[in-house]
Amino acid sequence: MKFPKSLEDLIENFKLLPGIGEKNAERLSFAVLKFNEDQIENFSNSILNVSKKIKKCTRCNNLTEDSDLCSICEDDSRDGSVICVVESTKDLILFEKSNAFKGKYHVLEGLISPLEGINPDDIKINELINRIKDEKIKEVILALNLSMEGETTSLYIIKMLEGMDVSITKIAAGIPVGADMEYLDSLTIQKALEGRIKID
Amino acid sequence: MKFPKSLEDLIENFKLLPGIGEKNAERLSFAVLKFNEDQIENFSNSILNVSKKIKKCTRCNNLTEDSDLCSICEDDSRDGSVICVVESTKDLILFEKSNAFKGKYHVLEGLISPLEGINPDDIKINELINRIKDEKIKEVILALNLSMEGETTSLYIIKMLEGMDVSITKIAAGIPVGADMEYLDSLTIQKALEGRIKID
Repeated sequence: MKFPKSLEDLIENFKLLPGIGEKNAERLSFAVLKFNEDQIENFSNSILNVSKKIKKCTRCNNLTEDSDLCSICEDDSRDGSVICVVESTKDLILFEKSNAFKGKYHVLEGLISPLEGINPDDIKINELINRIKDEKIKEVILALNLSMEGETTSLYIIKMLEGMDVSITKIAAGIPVGADMEYLDSLTIQKALEGRIKID
Repeated sequence: MKFPKSLEDLIENFKLLPGIGEKNAERLSFAVLKFNEDQIENFSNSILNVSKKIKKCTRCNNLTEDSDLCSICEDDSRDGSVICVVESTKDLILFEKSNAFKGKYHVLEGLISPLEGINPDDIKINELINRIKDEKIKEVILALNLSMEGETTSLYIIKMLEGMDVSITKIAAGIPVGADMEYLDSLTIQKALEGRIKID
């Protein structure tokens, strides 16, 4: 005895999502079973819509819905001479939530990873280089993870920009605010020391 | 700046599910964004189907899809004279997975809980009593949680069956297989002692 077929189907679909195992998929499916008609309709449609309507911004590769350019690229009040390079739209949202950056972005499609077969050509780096040429960019801020892949990608971009009249910066590495120092790894401590700031 | 509207919609829908918070809903929605067309279609349809096709077995209240009776009620090879009373279809599946029971079930719609306003009439107990009369049941196995609500519900059913020619049993309480005894509560230890079995 298993669950009825439709329920099994839904369980299998939930299991396709990251971090959702058998037990969890069953729990979520039982919750859907208790949804009212409107909730079912909304949930089902929102899945279709996300696939039909969401596309990539033709300039910065951020997500956009109604127009070809994303809301950030269309916002003329933002500084168009600075580009912050992030790994994904998720990272872009994090930066936006911080409210600390008022320039534009360039969203890569991941990071260079020879092991996973991800090459520079796959992640929109050429598009970034072309933008820097075409849009008269003054500063490129590299805001990628300090992982092997992130560092490789940063280095590759730096190399591609050699000889171009653009200032390249990298966001600071160091101790996260609120973190308990005793749990930080040596590399973070090392980066924090290297990046120390003179205060007096 | 937030996510595009369709993506926000999907995130809100995921947040309706139990245990799915903001961060997790974002992660799941981004995963859906990477689904191919077939996967999107399947996921969306499976939600509609679960709501349209799944219904309750008219006899035991288990879930069923194509016919009015569930696959267990329709299975004549099972012993129709024993009914195991469980709280939910989820519990029924657990018993089925154990392969230890070959009778029929009666699935309650939860447990009696005056605090939450759940009364005996709300959870298909009358239907159980009628079945015991009509189907010439010989044994009723109470397989409910040992919580306040579970015990209340068991006692209520026992009271309703008073004077009827049916044997009532309750599944054993005791030490779960594989559990480390040092983490068990006193009540479990007490139940295990009360239910001790003579071996020599």
